[in-house]
Amino acid sequence: MSETNVNTRLEAFCDGVFAIALTLLIIDIKIPATAEIHTTEDLWGALRHIIPSIFAFLLSFIIILITWVNHHAGLKLVNKSSPSFIYANGVMLLTVVFIPFPTSLVGEYILTDHAAPAVVLYNSILAFQSVGWILMTGACLKDRLYKSETSIPTIRENNKYGYYATAIYSLFAILAFWFLLTMAIITTITWIFWLVVGINITHE
Amino acid sequence: MSETNVNTRLEAFCDGVFAIALTLLIIDIKIPATAEIHTTEDLWGALRHIIPSIFAFLLSFIIILITWVNHHAGLKLVNKSSPSFIYANGVMLLTVVFIPFPTSLVGEYILTDHAAPAVVLYNSILAFQSVGWILMTGACLKDRLYKSETSIPTIRENNKYGYYATAIYSLFAILAFWFLLTMAIITTITWIFWLVVGINITHE
Amino acid sequence: MSETNVNTRLEAFCDGVFAIALTLLIIDIKIPATAEIHTTEDLWGALRHIIPSIFAFLLSFIIILITWVNHHAGLKLVNKSSPSFIYANGVMLLTVVFIPFPTSLVGEYILTDHAAPAVVLYNSILAFQSVGWILMTGACLKDRLYKSETSIPTIRENNKYGYYATAIYSLFAILAFWFLLTMAIITTITWIFWLVVGINITHE
Amino acid sequence: MSETNVNTRLEAFCDGVFAIALTLLIIDIKIPATAEIHTTEDLWGALRHIIPSIFAFLLSFIIILITWVNHHAGLKLVNKSSPSFIYANGVMLLTVVFIPFPTSLVGEYILTDHAAPAVVLYNSILAFQSVGWILMTGACLKDRLYKSETSIPTIRENNKYGYYATAIYSLFAILAFWFLLTMAIITTITWIFWLVVGINITHE
Repeated sequence: MSETNVNTRLEAFCDGVFAIALTLLIIDIKIPATAEIHTTEDLWGALRHIIPSIFAFLLSFIIILITWVNHHAGLKLVNKSSPSFIYANGVMLLTVVFIPFPTSLVGEYILTDHAAPAVVLYNSILAFQSVGWILMTGACLKDRLYKSETSIPTIRENNKYGYYATAIYSLFAILAFWFLLTMAIITTITWIFWLVVGINITHE
Repeated sequence: MSETNVNTRLEAFCDGVFAIALTLLIIDIKIPATAEIHTTEDLWGALRHIIPSIFAFLLSFIIILITWVNHHAGLKLVNKSSPSFIYANGVMLLTVVFIPFPTSLVGEYILTDHAAPAVVLYNSILAFQSVGWILMTGACLKDRLYKSETSIPTIRENNKYGYYATAIYSLFAILAFWFLLTMAIITTITWIFWLVVGINITHE
Repeated sequence: MSETNVNTRLEAFCDGVFAIALTLLIIDIKIPATAEIHTTEDLWGALRHIIPSIFAFLLSFIIILITWVNHHAGLKLVNKSSPSFIYANGVMLLTVVFIPFPTSLVGEYILTDHAAPAVVLYNSILAFQSVGWILMTGACLKDRLYKSETSIPTIRENNKYGYYATAIYSLFAILAFWFLLTMAIITTITWIFWLVVGINITHE
Repeated sequence: MSETNVNTRLEAFCDGVFAIALTLLIIDIKIPATAEIHTTEDLWGALRHIIPSIFAFLLSFIIILITWVNHHAGLKLVNKSSPSFIYANGVMLLTVVFIPFPTSLVGEYILTDHAAPAVVLYNSILAFQSVGWILMTGACLKDRLYKSETSIPTIRENNKYGYYATAIYSLFAILAFWFLLTMAIITTITWIFWLVVGINITHE
């Protein structure tokens, strides 16, 4: 039983980072400046302008939440630790911490005709996060951190998915140079799909 | 005993989000800009202007604190987990994370004659939070996550209250289109009532 | 042993709030705007201007840290919980969450001749925090939450100190209307004194 | 077993501070203002301007992560606590909390010819953090907080490294008055070196 406690602090640290990244998303949604608001209509109008920011906020919220659920499910299979595992976690956390920046960028620019850099950056971060998963699952397998041999196929599968995800989000990022709105929509649909899958599949 | 640990990470994650949302409320209260302050009287005057923001801060603080207490009391009845329960928690967290935005809006606009959107939004979020409670208690019942059969009536009651709360806050939100100040006062009284009830009732 | 776990989530939640309030102090220290900086001398000069903010940051850091240490030491004596204890904790957290605001105010205005409101507010919050301690220790005694009868004298003593502290900081707050700089210095000395006492006294 | 729990709350508190400091780094990277962006080229150009900020963000992320790993590894050797240990931890946390400020400063000024104060301050904080390590390891040894006698050599070694690190970063800070860019590069290389060492060495 004391063995399972090895990752308690790592989990607490990661939970902290996830929780903060999630909550920080809201501070990039600025309330309309009082100076420009003279009627109730003005305020409704100003709030309508931040709808893209709220859309970006929701998408990033869902992504961070799903990432947390997967992290949670993944660490249940593990009861040992190693330096490369801790630093692979660090790479994953880096991408989580970074998400508020492209989120804010997408929220601000998505309805302009020069939003390409925002969507490219957003998908690049998702590709980079998938690299984090490859490193984490790779470290699990290499350093034999799993609780039991029966978890090996699951971890290997997750590792493989990491490669697929890296490829897909890199492709999304590249395509976003030309088809920015299409890619923004496809990225959103992808994650709503993951959300629906996540709610229905049983993580044992 | 290991069974009760199933939700440890979920609790830690939620605690983190609650704690951060609570603390972030303060950063929307901006100190007066030095350029406009020349005398002690000026500074007192400027501080008097942020009283509505402090009122909104206090209301949201109380709401998040009570929500945390209820979440805490609710999860004591539960010792299993399921994907729909985790994502229902996510919906609840989403509304908690979002609270600083309408709080800031209410603080800024409540004393103007165009505050309706702020009060409408504030009550809409509370209605949406009640939907989160319906989903959470619903997942508890559907997936049989409770510790013992004796908790079923309590959870069912909470589920029912969730529906009532959704109806009430939706009504508040709609009425706020016309009676904004009245609804702001009624919302405040409602939560002070919950606070007094919460302090006196025993959560077993 | 399961009895001691009753306050685990309360502790985690409080730790979160303390940790965030502590860390948020830094975001009120703004870096100098690039537009006004043309030479290395300019930048040194601009940094010299934020020294009062750093002084306020350090004072609040010490206060929150000592408050955390006392909270930590206090909760070790307790192994039961009650609604009034949880909400008394809420009052204490409210004052912790609020500290960044007067801190920022003191940092910005302490060197002007109209800093009185900042110092008054700062000491008022400390007085209010002491009320939180009175409520917490009071709830402990009233609801018999202590681990063993032997802790009663300690908790009673802490309760009494709460009354003294409320009186003292209220006095400080009132005196700060006229002797702002003196009171700022006395407040600082008081907490450096607590720090030195805290490091040397043994919390069992 | 109950003995090992003595530092649970201290660890949770520190984890919170580390996690928040890490995540707050991102909010100093501001997205380009919409008013100045008219074409996709403009946005790419504006994003290119924040590359130094992202470089500073990455460096500080690595530093805080490595510090957390070391803190984590260090506290595994310890199973008792003392006031001086808790306050030594406080000194260490103070430096962690402070890091976002010089990070932001370096990001903003590193490519100007008046960046010396930024690099001096950055290295001063690292020197001060090393003092925190000296105090922490010193308190461990003085108050005999270690789990077993076999950890004494390791703690003593860490204590010695603390002195070396203080000397080195102080030297870096002084040299940065004249050779700011060189010192920025050397600081970066130093930490990439620590990162590589950290990933490969086995923390027991």
